[in-house]
Amino acid sequence: MSDRMIESLGEDECLGLISPGGIGRIAYQSRFGPAILPVNYKLHEGAIVFRTAEHSPLDEDLRTGIADAEYKVAFEIDEFDPAAHAGWSVLIQGSAHHVAGADRESAEAAGVQPWPGGARELFVRIVPSHITGRRIGANNP
Amino acid sequence: MSDRMIESLGEDECLGLISPGGIGRIAYQSRFGPAILPVNYKLHEGAIVFRTAEHSPLDEDLRTGIADAEYKVAFEIDEFDPAAHAGWSVLIQGSAHHVAGADRESAEAAGVQPWPGGARELFVRIVPSHITGRRIGANNP
Repeated sequence: MSDRMIESLGEDECLGLISPGGIGRIAYQSRFGPAILPVNYKLHEGAIVFRTAEHSPLDEDLRTGIADAEYKVAFEIDEFDPAAHAGWSVLIQGSAHHVAGADRESAEAAGVQPWPGGARELFVRIVPSHITGRRIGANNP
Repeated sequence: MSDRMIESLGEDECLGLISPGGIGRIAYQSRFGPAILPVNYKLHEGAIVFRTAEHSPLDEDLRTGIADAEYKVAFEIDEFDPAAHAGWSVLIQGSAHHVAGADRESAEAAGVQPWPGGARELFVRIVPSHITGRRIGANNP
């Protein structure tokens, strides 16, 4: 084993790492306890935005929670190099909301696209309250 | 947009996909709501096993919960090809436990290794109660 340490990342560095968008993972409370699902996200006006289909399992699970004013979820993005045992991860903790009206047009203009086809009509936004990140291994400058 | 659909995977297929081990992500309830952290895991005797350092943030967060008999967590493993918009994800929902005694020797023999160095003395096992998976895009046979 090496003696590599885990380095904490500042908020600005975290936002820089996740700004290209891509695959991230949302965690939320489901019927069977915590659940995690991958989605294709964009960083838009400081928030995580992704789309899902109305009445999809993710929609059904999130809908009840989002009805509350403060529905807390987690969103994680990471990138690892298994060969080098190196990489980083960013954790966003915040509240999830449906996006409607003018906000929705703005999110749509940002190009938030789901990978599956079909009607993906719900936009979900996660407004960060805590942004933390860590880096391990050879990626240090 | 394409008309690709999300395909559900059976339990056996899920276990086959995650059996090589590698990077997975655990979700649990933290002080700031749900949290997600990546760890290096092995599939050992039908359970997810990983190591963390005593008094690490992950240990501190999990410790209170694990004191309960049934501390529910989620564990997710995925693999995506961004160019092809294709990939799969597996979600394990179950209870987390510390591993001690003979079970621990068995887990250690299975070669569960954390990436960071230093003393990583806690073994955590997640016993699945629900195993679900989905595949999207070009990976279909």
